Amino acid sequence: MTPISIADTAEYLKNLRDVYILIHRSPDGDCIGSGYSLQAVLKQYGIRSRVLCADPIPPRFGFLLSDEEEEQFEPQTIVAVDVADEKLFGSLEERFAGKVDLCIDHHISNLGYAKRLLLEGDSAAACEVLYKVYRAMGVKFNRQIAMCLYTGMATDTGCFKFSNTNPDTHIFAAEIMREFPDIRYDLINREMFDVKSRSRLRAENIMLNNMEYYADGRITVVWATLDVCHENGVDEKDMEGLTSLGLQPEGVEVGITVREREPGEYKISMRSSHDVNVSAICKQFGGGGHIKAAGCQLTGTRDEVRKQLVAAVEAAL
Amino acid sequence: MTPISIADTAEYLKNLRDVYILIHRSPDGDCIGSGYSLQAVLKQYGIRSRVLCADPIPPRFGFLLSDEEEEQFEPQTIVAVDVADEKLFGSLEERFAGKVDLCIDHHISNLGYAKRLLLEGDSAAACEVLYKVYRAMGVKFNRQIAMCLYTGMATDTGCFKFSNTNPDTHIFAAEIMREFPDIRYDLINREMFDVKSRSRLRAENIMLNNMEYYADGRITVVWATLDVCHENGVDEKDMEGLTSLGLQPEGVEVGITVREREPGEYKISMRSSHDVNVSAICKQFGGGGHIKAAGCQLTGTRDEVRKQLVAAVEAAL
Repeated sequence: MTPISIADTAEYLKNLRDVYILIHRSPDGDCIGSGYSLQAVLKQYGIRSRVLCADPIPPRFGFLLSDEEEEQFEPQTIVAVDVADEKLFGSLEERFAGKVDLCIDHHISNLGYAKRLLLEGDSAAACEVLYKVYRAMGVKFNRQIAMCLYTGMATDTGCFKFSNTNPDTHIFAAEIMREFPDIRYDLINREMFDVKSRSRLRAENIMLNNMEYYADGRITVVWATLDVCHENGVDEKDMEGLTSLGLQPEGVEVGITVREREPGEYKISMRSSHDVNVSAICKQFGGGGHIKAAGCQLTGTRDEVRKQLVAAVEAAL
Repeated sequence: MTPISIADTAEYLKNLRDVYILIHRSPDGDCIGSGYSLQAVLKQYGIRSRVLCADPIPPRFGFLLSDEEEEQFEPQTIVAVDVADEKLFGSLEERFAGKVDLCIDHHISNLGYAKRLLLEGDSAAACEVLYKVYRAMGVKFNRQIAMCLYTGMATDTGCFKFSNTNPDTHIFAAEIMREFPDIRYDLINREMFDVKSRSRLRAENIMLNNMEYYADGRITVVWATLDVCHENGVDEKDMEGLTSLGLQPEGVEVGITVREREPGEYKISMRSSHDVNVSAICKQFGGGGHIKAAGCQLTGTRDEVRKQLVAAVEAAL
């Protein structure tokens, strides 16, 4: 693996042909915005490309895609965007592992699997890195590129809310808004942050109805057991990404979500609002993750699981 | 009333003494940030001032206030910030109506009650207007001023999410972050947008549990009746600001919240996610407000109220 600069990445991209752009499985706004903006940029240089993902692009991101029919061709070059680890290629891993020519990423955890790596660990989003690359290329943005980059930066920062937001994120958003004042950024944000499916709303309701408080309200535990989920017509997918709800009550430092996958088998997600390192806690149970967001798996009775988790977090408070 | 420019406001402020700064009742992040940043700025010119509000400042905004003991004095000059109408002085209206020397605001609905009015209708927040004024004054920001201005802009835009967000909002946020990289903007945002009291969470739960769908899911109606509120230990105050919840389900264009104030007396709030003008709808019932957020009052049985409201919104869809 060779580290590559923004300027060199800009030069490298201009001279490619027949490119496959890989994004990570369970695609989110940042990798989708990265992939499809890169496709649109390459097109300006007459370079054909395809965006490949192991999972389908969720319909709410449909506005970021190109309308054109996709060409079929064999790749000369493989570029991965926003993918820290080849495992995240999902079902495409077998085909592309060891074959990535260039990776553009912002995850400091990037494993360096690609031949060339442009890694900007201080960037809030891969789209923020790409913004700099496109500016270095001298690309003229169009609406699609603008919407892709804005959406990637907004989604990865919780709409400029999280600690990864930096001055550049705001500056780039401002520049995009100045160049394309007619894009309805408010409607993009509504779609990304406020709109929820009815089953998702029912899932949130389950979470709120089942919240337990420990350690003087500094810990919450929320249970999504199989019977409660069945009762409410909610499946495991609806429960994804809900762990942050456990951090909503004032004073909570660690929010724990316990999802029952099989009777007596639990998938645990932990989120930290301040400075508790939940990755370290989850490691004690054979799991891991980031300082503020981690997970692990446990088996046992509900009481046993609760006791172990609460005790481990209390020790860390 | 005389309109006054940013440059003239800057000059005017530098030469005051003994200032009362009035903010609106039910104070929010923008008027609190405006008021207390102005106090801190005036102090740099040796001008003493007091911030006056009809209602107490909610504890979660405590970090924006100055630690210093408040001096008692009679005012030479009255300045109002973020107050569109003297009625919004609340219990202070009687004392100060007709006496405001300068008003700095961003509401295009400002009634022009002050002797001098700096009105920037395109600004997302009064704090955005004040940011320009302070720059024109050449003020050196301190942490308190930075936190006040950031908080005002963030809260009035839903963390840069709503349609009032403009390129300047992002640029000013970036400049503040560059100058004060150590401020925990993420924790401010968590406190402003994610943290909720337990009774507030119970109130949200009531809303979600009582959501009705009409017009193929384009309208939601949520009921907060007296008995449901009592049952759940939730009072009217906890229900404030929850109307936007009705817009969460995908496809909803108008969300209606109906709060029962006395048996058979209902206070209605409407929010519009796209282009339906709910102010016009509420006017039909003797109410009013903004295009995207309005309210009215109705009496009758639950069925009568529901039918009238749904019919009026359906006609506007």
